[in-house]
Amino acid sequence: MQAERSWLEWVRNAAERSRARQPHVRLGIGDDAAVLRPRRGWEIVATTDLFVEGVHFLRARDRAASCGRRLATRALSDLAAMGAEPVALLISSLYPKSLATAWAREFCRGLLDAAAEAEAALAGGDMATVRRTRERTVFDVVGLGQVPRGQALQRSGARAGDRIYVSGRLGEAALGRELVHRGRPAKNAEERRARARHIHPRARWELGQALRGRASAAIDLSDGLATDLHHLCRASGVGAEIEMMTLPGVASGPPLRRALFGGEDYELLFTLPRGKSIPTPRVLGLGLTCIGQIKAARGVWLRHADGRRERIPDAGFEH
Amino acid sequence: MQAERSWLEWVRNAAERSRARQPHVRLGIGDDAAVLRPRRGWEIVATTDLFVEGVHFLRARDRAASCGRRLATRALSDLAAMGAEPVALLISSLYPKSLATAWAREFCRGLLDAAAEAEAALAGGDMATVRRTRERTVFDVVGLGQVPRGQALQRSGARAGDRIYVSGRLGEAALGRELVHRGRPAKNAEERRARARHIHPRARWELGQALRGRASAAIDLSDGLATDLHHLCRASGVGAEIEMMTLPGVASGPPLRRALFGGEDYELLFTLPRGKSIPTPRVLGLGLTCIGQIKAARGVWLRHADGRRERIPDAGFEH
Repeated sequence: MQAERSWLEWVRNAAERSRARQPHVRLGIGDDAAVLRPRRGWEIVATTDLFVEGVHFLRARDRAASCGRRLATRALSDLAAMGAEPVALLISSLYPKSLATAWAREFCRGLLDAAAEAEAALAGGDMATVRRTRERTVFDVVGLGQVPRGQALQRSGARAGDRIYVSGRLGEAALGRELVHRGRPAKNAEERRARARHIHPRARWELGQALRGRASAAIDLSDGLATDLHHLCRASGVGAEIEMMTLPGVASGPPLRRALFGGEDYELLFTLPRGKSIPTPRVLGLGLTCIGQIKAARGVWLRHADGRRERIPDAGFEH
Repeated sequence: MQAERSWLEWVRNAAERSRARQPHVRLGIGDDAAVLRPRRGWEIVATTDLFVEGVHFLRARDRAASCGRRLATRALSDLAAMGAEPVALLISSLYPKSLATAWAREFCRGLLDAAAEAEAALAGGDMATVRRTRERTVFDVVGLGQVPRGQALQRSGARAGDRIYVSGRLGEAALGRELVHRGRPAKNAEERRARARHIHPRARWELGQALRGRASAAIDLSDGLATDLHHLCRASGVGAEIEMMTLPGVASGPPLRRALFGGEDYELLFTLPRGKSIPTPRVLGLGLTCIGQIKAARGVWLRHADGRRERIPDAGFEH
């Protein structure tokens, strides 16, 4: 109980420091709710995501700090996809009483680091414990951001002829997750990079903000390209064709499957109408790749190197 | 899978209807995040609360619709305590795949009813399932509201001499919960009312808004008077003395224990400085009772009918 109190005190102080640095959070942790003061005339963007042991992470395999960072990244990536500037996170956690304080502290450290990089305050949350030791740890993260009035990026604006872009490399986090969860060390530079991307992801909020007024539609790649492109196409009432040879960091076989269905890339998928250009990649320090085009007819198609077209099913990613 | 899809479709449509009625939600369910457009110059209030099977509710005893309503009420009550106007709820749910669709639908109905009464839209959420049948169902609710700039009620404004008020009757929900969880029918009017208050709670958002510019501090009674008064006093750096004889709906014995430690009242506890009057109760249709006074010296005291003073420990409510 004493350890629990001092640990909560530690979280509270760290949260209060993060709030003091974020001028748009007027009131943080410790009241019935947080109070956000958005910029004059800006709107608030709000998202919530679960992060469940055995579904989204393995407590025995994933480092605590990495889990905390990935929890924050889930929300920050959603804010990025809306073109929003991150403002605050709220965290709910349900855990067995037996959970080691060291684990919880490292988890929070990872979470707070990721929040600080995005200049988001930890502004509230809830906590509950269960007695049984062998229960799942469950987290829920709330992401709150701000965006100029009417300028939020949506999934629904893609039109036939728009070019389809992705940031970064696809399927990398999925490869990293396989390595970490199998306890297999990285064999080469590619695997080391993949491992790092899984352990230490970073959402693309600068890119999201740079896409305001350019992209016709955007979504974050949390469930794999296939699933998320289907989401975007369904919301926009269109179809898409992507070129296998253009997919960044992908050859055929397992890398292709990972890119299409791997999940947790936390990159952005967006569409650009004719006449709009991508933001300068050098400014962003991030590769942006055109991978295909939006089509009027429904359905998502993959064109292989030999010109063969394969329909990508709308399978849905299961963590 | 087909049932799951059509059920999700039902939730989506219901959510979209709730959004269409709420002018401050520009974008609801179905994108990476919801977008809120607060009134010009108003601030956003954000809260998150867990609602866990076996901790906050019993799936075998509590009706599904009541669980949904209580989930929404947890968030709406926090918004009320801030003096905020409800705008939107986001819901995360983790449940075993085997959960009956009928249960989920009734749960949502209760949730949507409570949200509609408060004119809050269901504007987003997340969902995850686990395969094992005997796992806890876990919910997290996000409450989003708006409040005029700088006018949010806080826990920290109470000063020595302020009068302490509560709305409604204390410990009623706790009595109702005992009856429902023991499967014991209500014996008299008081027990029927308590049962109804547990099954069908309603947060006090009209009162919260009426308290802006009047109350020096406010908190919602979710953990019992003793615990929540301690929270308020700690945040304000003061103490308090309450009069047993004034506690609404309370005699000594079990009713007193329930009032002090019962939880889930979802009433408001607030303090009024000298010169400020309570909002007209008739307008609110709600009893407001002065139960004591804020003191400069720390510690929360209960004065009994015979004048004896008893210190109330800061025990913390455990659901």
